[in-house]
Amino acid sequence: MAKDKNTRRVMVLHGPNLNMLGSREPEVYGKLTLEKINDHISREAEGMSMEVEVHQSNYEGELVELIHRAGREFDGIILNPGAFTHYSLAIRDAVSSVEIPVVEIHLSNVHAREEFRSKSVIAPVTLGQIAGFGFHSYLVGLRALQLHLDS
Amino acid sequence: MAKDKNTRRVMVLHGPNLNMLGSREPEVYGKLTLEKINDHISREAEGMSMEVEVHQSNYEGELVELIHRAGREFDGIILNPGAFTHYSLAIRDAVSSVEIPVVEIHLSNVHAREEFRSKSVIAPVTLGQIAGFGFHSYLVGLRALQLHLDS
Amino acid sequence: MAKDKNTRRVMVLHGPNLNMLGSREPEVYGKLTLEKINDHISREAEGMSMEVEVHQSNYEGELVELIHRAGREFDGIILNPGAFTHYSLAIRDAVSSVEIPVVEIHLSNVHAREEFRSKSVIAPVTLGQIAGFGFHSYLVGLRALQLHLDS
Amino acid sequence: MAKDKNTRRVMVLHGPNLNMLGSREPEVYGKLTLEKINDHISREAEGMSMEVEVHQSNYEGELVELIHRAGREFDGIILNPGAFTHYSLAIRDAVSSVEIPVVEIHLSNVHAREEFRSKSVIAPVTLGQIAGFGFHSYLVGLRALQLHLDS
Amino acid sequence: MAKDKNTRRVMVLHGPNLNMLGSREPEVYGKLTLEKINDHISREAEGMSMEVEVHQSNYEGELVELIHRAGREFDGIILNPGAFTHYSLAIRDAVSSVEIPVVEIHLSNVHAREEFRSKSVIAPVTLGQIAGFGFHSYLVGLRALQLHLDS
Amino acid sequence: MAKDKNTRRVMVLHGPNLNMLGSREPEVYGKLTLEKINDHISREAEGMSMEVEVHQSNYEGELVELIHRAGREFDGIILNPGAFTHYSLAIRDAVSSVEIPVVEIHLSNVHAREEFRSKSVIAPVTLGQIAGFGFHSYLVGLRALQLHLDS
Amino acid sequence: MAKDKNTRRVMVLHGPNLNMLGSREPEVYGKLTLEKINDHISREAEGMSMEVEVHQSNYEGELVELIHRAGREFDGIILNPGAFTHYSLAIRDAVSSVEIPVVEIHLSNVHAREEFRSKSVIAPVTLGQIAGFGFHSYLVGLRALQLHLDS
Amino acid sequence: MAKDKNTRRVMVLHGPNLNMLGSREPEVYGKLTLEKINDHISREAEGMSMEVEVHQSNYEGELVELIHRAGREFDGIILNPGAFTHYSLAIRDAVSSVEIPVVEIHLSNVHAREEFRSKSVIAPVTLGQIAGFGFHSYLVGLRALQLHLDS
Amino acid sequence: MAKDKNTRRVMVLHGPNLNMLGSREPEVYGKLTLEKINDHISREAEGMSMEVEVHQSNYEGELVELIHRAGREFDGIILNPGAFTHYSLAIRDAVSSVEIPVVEIHLSNVHAREEFRSKSVIAPVTLGQIAGFGFHSYLVGLRALQLHLDS
Amino acid sequence: MAKDKNTRRVMVLHGPNLNMLGSREPEVYGKLTLEKINDHISREAEGMSMEVEVHQSNYEGELVELIHRAGREFDGIILNPGAFTHYSLAIRDAVSSVEIPVVEIHLSNVHAREEFRSKSVIAPVTLGQIAGFGFHSYLVGLRALQLHLDS
Amino acid sequence: MAKDKNTRRVMVLHGPNLNMLGSREPEVYGKLTLEKINDHISREAEGMSMEVEVHQSNYEGELVELIHRAGREFDGIILNPGAFTHYSLAIRDAVSSVEIPVVEIHLSNVHAREEFRSKSVIAPVTLGQIAGFGFHSYLVGLRALQLHLDS
Amino acid sequence: MAKDKNTRRVMVLHGPNLNMLGSREPEVYGKLTLEKINDHISREAEGMSMEVEVHQSNYEGELVELIHRAGREFDGIILNPGAFTHYSLAIRDAVSSVEIPVVEIHLSNVHAREEFRSKSVIAPVTLGQIAGFGFHSYLVGLRALQLHLDS
Repeated sequence: MAKDKNTRRVMVLHGPNLNMLGSREPEVYGKLTLEKINDHISREAEGMSMEVEVHQSNYEGELVELIHRAGREFDGIILNPGAFTHYSLAIRDAVSSVEIPVVEIHLSNVHAREEFRSKSVIAPVTLGQIAGFGFHSYLVGLRALQLHLDS
Repeated sequence: MAKDKNTRRVMVLHGPNLNMLGSREPEVYGKLTLEKINDHISREAEGMSMEVEVHQSNYEGELVELIHRAGREFDGIILNPGAFTHYSLAIRDAVSSVEIPVVEIHLSNVHAREEFRSKSVIAPVTLGQIAGFGFHSYLVGLRALQLHLDS
Repeated sequence: MAKDKNTRRVMVLHGPNLNMLGSREPEVYGKLTLEKINDHISREAEGMSMEVEVHQSNYEGELVELIHRAGREFDGIILNPGAFTHYSLAIRDAVSSVEIPVVEIHLSNVHAREEFRSKSVIAPVTLGQIAGFGFHSYLVGLRALQLHLDS
Repeated sequence: MAKDKNTRRVMVLHGPNLNMLGSREPEVYGKLTLEKINDHISREAEGMSMEVEVHQSNYEGELVELIHRAGREFDGIILNPGAFTHYSLAIRDAVSSVEIPVVEIHLSNVHAREEFRSKSVIAPVTLGQIAGFGFHSYLVGLRALQLHLDS
Repeated sequence: MAKDKNTRRVMVLHGPNLNMLGSREPEVYGKLTLEKINDHISREAEGMSMEVEVHQSNYEGELVELIHRAGREFDGIILNPGAFTHYSLAIRDAVSSVEIPVVEIHLSNVHAREEFRSKSVIAPVTLGQIAGFGFHSYLVGLRALQLHLDS
Repeated sequence: MAKDKNTRRVMVLHGPNLNMLGSREPEVYGKLTLEKINDHISREAEGMSMEVEVHQSNYEGELVELIHRAGREFDGIILNPGAFTHYSLAIRDAVSSVEIPVVEIHLSNVHAREEFRSKSVIAPVTLGQIAGFGFHSYLVGLRALQLHLDS
Repeated sequence: MAKDKNTRRVMVLHGPNLNMLGSREPEVYGKLTLEKINDHISREAEGMSMEVEVHQSNYEGELVELIHRAGREFDGIILNPGAFTHYSLAIRDAVSSVEIPVVEIHLSNVHAREEFRSKSVIAPVTLGQIAGFGFHSYLVGLRALQLHLDS
Repeated sequence: MAKDKNTRRVMVLHGPNLNMLGSREPEVYGKLTLEKINDHISREAEGMSMEVEVHQSNYEGELVELIHRAGREFDGIILNPGAFTHYSLAIRDAVSSVEIPVVEIHLSNVHAREEFRSKSVIAPVTLGQIAGFGFHSYLVGLRALQLHLDS
Repeated sequence: MAKDKNTRRVMVLHGPNLNMLGSREPEVYGKLTLEKINDHISREAEGMSMEVEVHQSNYEGELVELIHRAGREFDGIILNPGAFTHYSLAIRDAVSSVEIPVVEIHLSNVHAREEFRSKSVIAPVTLGQIAGFGFHSYLVGLRALQLHLDS
Repeated sequence: MAKDKNTRRVMVLHGPNLNMLGSREPEVYGKLTLEKINDHISREAEGMSMEVEVHQSNYEGELVELIHRAGREFDGIILNPGAFTHYSLAIRDAVSSVEIPVVEIHLSNVHAREEFRSKSVIAPVTLGQIAGFGFHSYLVGLRALQLHLDS
Repeated sequence: MAKDKNTRRVMVLHGPNLNMLGSREPEVYGKLTLEKINDHISREAEGMSMEVEVHQSNYEGELVELIHRAGREFDGIILNPGAFTHYSLAIRDAVSSVEIPVVEIHLSNVHAREEFRSKSVIAPVTLGQIAGFGFHSYLVGLRALQLHLDS
Repeated sequence: MAKDKNTRRVMVLHGPNLNMLGSREPEVYGKLTLEKINDHISREAEGMSMEVEVHQSNYEGELVELIHRAGREFDGIILNPGAFTHYSLAIRDAVSSVEIPVVEIHLSNVHAREEFRSKSVIAPVTLGQIAGFGFHSYLVGLRALQLHLDS
């Protein structure tokens, strides 16, 4: 990877329904809107001298293509696949098709909810997973990515 | 919900391949085209003093976003998820993310066909389900929604 | 079927424990007694110029025989098999043995409860299913039956 | 068993829905009514110098009690459990509770139909099973019982 | 429950085939007849100043209705569902429909026998279960009920 | 079938290890040698004016080819597939490839033994099955075949 | 067993995390501390002229060895295996290795909780099981053991 | 089908992530880019006097609609569904909804990889499948389609 | 492989029951006899300057040994394992034991038939699979093999 | 929790075999010894003004008791349960029995290894999980705990 | 068994594909040819004063018959069933049908390979199993047999 | 491994409940005490010029640590994990963490007992397994280890 280490760039991807954060089942996902969470992410990234580009999409195909682009232009991906976590083999293959590290993120503790949420078809091809810390999961994911890229 | 009860609005959503009705496996789905079915729906809704807005999409992401919009602007949803019924957790989460009642509709008796069609991942988060009555399923679904909203 | 279309007759069958409605888990099944629900059913049927005969039984064998009789004397069946839904293959075979349409009804959204309730062994041989609308399920079922018989 | 071998008595039990034979799915179960089949059984038994008592019941409890009585008063049972074959552990335990041989009979080839029909919960505690020969299954079952009792 | 605590009444229900006790597989179920066991139960109850009413039925429907009645007139139920333990969701729902405590009883150690006997569909809605102590299970069940009602 | 009805010919096929009968696990399979059983079969067939040709083979391929030949030259097959019952799809397809009726025979009650013995991959394509009557199963099978061919 | 019947000795074993009773999930396990429960057990035993020795351990190995010792020095065991219930085959084998009766005890109704709690790997080799009566389960267990040892 | 046989038209559909060929896991998918593969396909088609139109999409919905259009305007489809193979029932239904033959293609031997790749939800409604020959799979698929259309 | 590329030799293996082609279930397998199909194969091979040697066997062991021999004397194998596809691990291991490419062939679309036919235990160790094109599958398989050997 | 927020104390627990780090399968777990990792953890904690106490144990019982103690004396737990992750319900119950947040940590990406490693029986009762970042997982876990405790 | 103990005779059976040893997947099965392994076996047997007769067959039927013969003429069998291990119930029954001890042998550690190789349908009816020691497995198997026959 | 080949040292590990040998289920495990078996092992080792150190533990953690120590100080391990065989992934990981060969030993034929005993979670990471020869399994295991270390 000939990407410049000094200007580390991370793509943050929010999957389906995450645009509804704040109003959607707040007892599960918290009361912050996605906009607010993105502010937190940006501030955290700034503190780590990282540059983030944030996208939300309800389209599997769009997420696949964003991952493809990230593979060419970014140093890492923070990916919250939302419900796609549990069945989108297309996103799994997209992650496999890029060489940059991908960190899988979940707001809620997926293991403490419906049975189907404890299974991720994407996890086996990511670098690692972080789940259960609310929007902190993103912040912690950035930190994990930074440590990994520095090592 | 501060929506005006006098002008009840229902979004009717047809999922993937339903645009092929009439020509697609007519022994299973009947010979009426989607256009004709929509006419029946409109007439029935009119008779109940409901306003319907009808959409068909082959894109999971588009259905997710239509549900989001319906959650803000409509009083209920009549949803025929088509094949998405059996795996689209994204649509399930979209349904969970809105507070209006959603009625799941199927043209055919899904329990009398391939094994996989008897399982709906969306049903647990809907208000109720109606299946097996051909295009009548939609009409009956409108009636169920009306009764529910009135009660 | 040589039955007279003008005097459409429908048998409404309530399965086991439905005699306990009103006191039995009202948060699941509602507060109306079966008697009250039967009144609603009768009124709705009257409005559709249908004649209904209503039975409740906690005996699988009795339900089997009522279905047999309905097959000879009625134009359709509205069947809430209660717990028998999930294992009574005898009732399934009874439904198969008659030629009139049978509509399966559930008060609660069976897909939102215990895992075992999402499986109906009877559904594959019925005309269609309606679930989740409380006692409205019966009313809507009558409507579905009417539309089917008229078509 | 102190029962008199000269006057061998066999109870023939028809399970649920078998009273519908002749009209019920004739392509599966044949066109003979149960009455006609019982005539065949009687004639065959007569030819073997056996005495038969025939019952049909749609009630699991009644079948259980008929088996109990047969255990005290008969030399063997020809049992077509109908749909109970696949779940009635009560009938299984009734068979276990008597010491006389029980032959399980099916009209149709249960292995060539729905998956669930290939599993009998009763078979493990019977003497043997005969399936697939239409009403001949009963006649052949009588013969198997005779050979067994004679040996 | 406005029932008089001084005159505690317990319904004891024996399920299918338990009328065969003594002669049925004595190596599993012991040599005592049901009559003898009922004597033991009565004596034990008397010693605890409880009043017992005992029923045996091979009919699922009758057991359902006895449970309904017990819910109105008794303080608790000692229930040995026999083979119904493993599939009678109707009895499960009957137990759910009453508010008095129900203790599930088994004569044999159901976990040491055929695989299917280790699964009770009724247990989740009972107060507790006692299994494996032969007819002592009933006596111990009465004691458990007494302790529960006293606490 | 243009085969002459007057000279009905039946092929009897014994599968693997049946040549060991008499010495092999006599508590399961009885004490008669295969030779003795074949004598019984011949006598029974004679009494029915049938002609039998008997083969035993431990080779799946040989059984497949005997079935093929029987399909051209015989009126029916009595088949005890032995252990092949549970996995030989080649024999299943051989049975499917001929148009004459095939009766599946088992000496022991396969449902009362190891779990795997209760599943036959061949049964779905046979006419019917007879199991559990020791060598009588063959005799009864001949009778079933005769009744079928006569009807 | 040459042990003196007059001085019946019972070992009571509490498995992992039971030392946390009182503070641990009191809505599931009750508010009594283990110490208090032990007092209840001692008093009940005394009333039955039994001698109890009580142990709690979070170590599987220690429980195994206590069972071994009990097999040599005691007349019976009251065993609450806690979470080991569901996977400790070592404790199962320990129970198998002793000849004294072992009664399995659970505070909560294990069948009404997470799926995995309804399966006990130890139950098949115990005398019987008692579950769901809170700390009364122990008292009732002592009674069951006494009845068993007296019979 | 009134389509002109002289100008046979085939739509070739590449599913998600196939745009990444060449760089994506070359040890699995080979080193050719999709562009190069398309050249090979075009040349092969030309040699067979077929006309091909090639599309790649990462959007399930777009593939569904391309199949619909192909059903109206083409004589056959060569479909490599990529990861959608394993879960896209929407694409399965799209294939069912058209009457032209569809050949399912895979570059890699899907049976020699992760377990989930050996299951195709689309295969049951296609004409046939070809897998494992790298980009040759497409060429061979064209040949199979030609032979089928000619027969 | 020191084999001469100019004289490419391919062994074509037909598994069990394929000798019955033409008369065996023609609606599934077509009306051509195996002899006719072999003619087609020979002609196609000739056109590709390949030499084919064709064998049919109903014996698993013989197929195993033919594969072994092919491994020593041929450049590739076209293998239609028939019913062995679904369970013959011996043939799987035979394929693994040779270094030449093996193409698995099926006449019918195995995924559109009984569930068990969609699973091949041999496929994971072959080069690729072709299914569903009737006897064309063989022709197309030859082509795939040629392309592979040339590349 | 009356614990002093200024002196936040975290217990770090390493489960079985983690004492072998450095020499144990370094391609999976990295080359750092546990001692070195503990140094990293201490430094990171220091930087966050946290106090850590670190333990490693190969004994399930000891881990259970350390968790109990942490519940009384610490503000949070960083827990790498090692192989116990997949079966130790005793540790799960220990985690449930304390009220402080527990973060589950894994060095490797458990989802990319043997099937059994993707299932954690402990995760459902923890706050969240972090896996796949090598020893960075611990550092990131501390950060997640800090963010959680601060919020 | 009247066989002479002084001249102990052991049949060594090699199942399908073992004739390919040396060239077949040497990284799994080693580089020795079967001939060389047989030499080792003979020498080892000689050292134990045993007489061995060695056979290899790719035919299930032949192995069945060799086992039958061994049962009459030998004192024990060393059996490497190769791929038949996992499905040949015919060989299982052959082993059951003889009274001499049979030791199951595998060259490779079957538990460290494909999932299906960890299941032996034959093992339950053998004396014992030895796997994973390459050709040493045979030598060790002879020793185990000797110890068993001597005890 | 720089360990001295002349002084081969083997650790023999007996898992839980093996201290009960002789009295524990002698029909399964034989009548020899562990002490006596250890004498046999020592004698056999001596005859092979091996040095053995023998341990028995009922504690999983202790077995883990003994394996760790053996990895540093011994040339091989003979391991009878007892009941831990079926669930102790901690012991599995301990075996993985050492580089010396480990031979898994079972006294009984684990495949002929309860279903759960046929699955070893440890076997995949051992060198090989020996089961079913009573205490001879240990002796034969030593021999296998010797052959392996010599090769």
